[in-house]
Amino acid sequence: MAKLTPPSRGFDHREFEQRTQQLQLLMAKDRIDAVFFSTEPEFRYFSGFKSQFWESPTRPWFLVVPASGRPIAVVPEIGVAGFEQTWIDDVRSWPSPRPEDDGVSLLADTLTEVARQHRRIGAMLGAETHLRMPAANFAALQQRLSQQQMVDVSTSVREIRSVKSAAEVAKIRFACEVTAASFDYLREYLRAGMTEREACKAMHLEMLRLGADSCPYLISASGQGGYDNIIMGPSDRILGEGDVLIIDTGANFDGYFSDFDRNYGFGRVEADTHIAYEAVYRSTEAGLKIAAPGRTTGDVWQAMWTVLENAGALGNNVGRMGHGLGMQLTEWPSNVPGGDVILRPGMILTLEPGMTFSPGKMMVHEENILITENGCELLHKRAWASIPVIV
Amino acid sequence: MAKLTPPSRGFDHREFEQRTQQLQLLMAKDRIDAVFFSTEPEFRYFSGFKSQFWESPTRPWFLVVPASGRPIAVVPEIGVAGFEQTWIDDVRSWPSPRPEDDGVSLLADTLTEVARQHRRIGAMLGAETHLRMPAANFAALQQRLSQQQMVDVSTSVREIRSVKSAAEVAKIRFACEVTAASFDYLREYLRAGMTEREACKAMHLEMLRLGADSCPYLISASGQGGYDNIIMGPSDRILGEGDVLIIDTGANFDGYFSDFDRNYGFGRVEADTHIAYEAVYRSTEAGLKIAAPGRTTGDVWQAMWTVLENAGALGNNVGRMGHGLGMQLTEWPSNVPGGDVILRPGMILTLEPGMTFSPGKMMVHEENILITENGCELLHKRAWASIPVIV
Repeated sequence: MAKLTPPSRGFDHREFEQRTQQLQLLMAKDRIDAVFFSTEPEFRYFSGFKSQFWESPTRPWFLVVPASGRPIAVVPEIGVAGFEQTWIDDVRSWPSPRPEDDGVSLLADTLTEVARQHRRIGAMLGAETHLRMPAANFAALQQRLSQQQMVDVSTSVREIRSVKSAAEVAKIRFACEVTAASFDYLREYLRAGMTEREACKAMHLEMLRLGADSCPYLISASGQGGYDNIIMGPSDRILGEGDVLIIDTGANFDGYFSDFDRNYGFGRVEADTHIAYEAVYRSTEAGLKIAAPGRTTGDVWQAMWTVLENAGALGNNVGRMGHGLGMQLTEWPSNVPGGDVILRPGMILTLEPGMTFSPGKMMVHEENILITENGCELLHKRAWASIPVIV
Repeated sequence: MAKLTPPSRGFDHREFEQRTQQLQLLMAKDRIDAVFFSTEPEFRYFSGFKSQFWESPTRPWFLVVPASGRPIAVVPEIGVAGFEQTWIDDVRSWPSPRPEDDGVSLLADTLTEVARQHRRIGAMLGAETHLRMPAANFAALQQRLSQQQMVDVSTSVREIRSVKSAAEVAKIRFACEVTAASFDYLREYLRAGMTEREACKAMHLEMLRLGADSCPYLISASGQGGYDNIIMGPSDRILGEGDVLIIDTGANFDGYFSDFDRNYGFGRVEADTHIAYEAVYRSTEAGLKIAAPGRTTGDVWQAMWTVLENAGALGNNVGRMGHGLGMQLTEWPSNVPGGDVILRPGMILTLEPGMTFSPGKMMVHEENILITENGCELLHKRAWASIPVIV
């Protein structure tokens, strides 16, 4: 397989300006003077600061978005040099680690300085978020800001982030193409007698060779005729006659993810497995047909589930059938029963229909789509219409 | 290079029992009825549950450690099947995502059930920790547990975790050997004209081939005679005559990390770079000589800094010169000025002396050591005594 051609890295500074202005519009509406972020995706989304150093849990990092103008970085000294390439010009730092005051007073001072009008400060407090700072430090921060009101901005932020720019789409599309090509490679590479771990290692190496920066998520499950989970593995289980193997992976390019899976059968594949695979395939088709601007996440779920129910699904313990995708492996929104999030052009979603088709046996598919003006578009080659059988 | 031989995966259930009993002893001393965890390392440390699914930020996961007996898992339905292989037998679940109550009531009920004696509940609230759950949900949990006192257990947990078992040491040692062998490979592979990114990709592939499961941290920096940061990159900068390249990486095997770096010169290397390299090398030697049971993290810092100061160091903006290492890339404690953490056999540390030796030019080395009964032991092949020059 020839190397795929990656899109350019990074973003124009204008893109960070637009993102920040979108947030500032919503802040103005909610009379919020300043917002602070502590987690990697939000920090990167508004600043352009991209570092693997978040892997170290020792030091907190903060980004303050004022009512107007550029964000202010409040970061450990070790990080200052990393802002040269960003659009951020106000970088404040402290010598960290300093457990007795790891950025708390500097953050509080910065927020106090910029939050004078309404005395309302926004933070990520809601669903699917967390604060990446010690809970004791957050309590100390609230104490220091006792004259200010702390309000949740997670719903504003997720709405902004859910609609991707052309440059973001290009990165995700590339991650998806690398993933799909590697699944094709694996179809040729797999043999009975390999372990799950060997299969995943081959997939891992191929995704890196084809241009992924990393593959932070790469799981597998297998069993006779099906598997009983989709979040563990890989194990040292040897693949053989009658097995079904699923590999689900998220490759990353320039900070953006793919997230989809493929299923493979080994030797003799039972009729009920073939039938389940084809039902889940048709379920994805139903999702592809309905996903369009104006439809809801509930519509997408219902269209996919109706197919699975008619095929005799015994249940689904995943809790949803797809989700947003981008800087994180899974993002808001979720495709759930009754889901009322309205799809908009530029959203990127996974369609992830799955069911238990026999006790202890699941079949799960996943594809990544972009919502377009008129419908949706697959970001990579579609799964095979029937389960590939490794002989 | 032949493939290295990895140690066995996983742990005896006895090991989880011992870890849990150590915590329960400290809980009894502090009159704590139950502790809950929300972050991956602690969840895995006490339960043995190991999944890459933590990459998805959507769903919270909780582990409750009662005053006696096994921990209780309070987890999304999608995760239940993953506990079959663990020593956990009490697994409670809810259908997640469920933003209106994502495990909060189930966690509160579980804690209330087991925390009857002292009405004191432990949580990770202190330095270098965070709660992996929405802040609004933590507030709701505190409301539901208003009859209970919430106390920090992070100092107890870090003390337990900082002393590694033989099985943990074997995993870290293997990750370190893979890393060192890959740095040797890179010394042969590197050529002027390559980019930083190409160098890191080659390192990445080699570490995976030699047996690493993943390499979540793999950064580089380069410049004429030195570099100005150690946490960004890799960039597309082309390496050439007069450059110094640093690569710092954490390879992971079975959930345990290595974390060290190597420096490479290209073509003509200036005298001050050679001198800086050798001074930092001698600084590590001073660290290796002093690191022993009974010494403190401050002693280690002082021994290393004295060498650098005598060599004319202009400063150090990293904030410490080494740290704990294990399930996370960086763990407690830190080698800092005045550090009073007493070294104990079984601790694994990095020695990471570094200095700015000329404006904008840093030189940083790092090695990984195990504190033994009498001193310390390198977990991998030592760095080269003088900077390797790629011609």
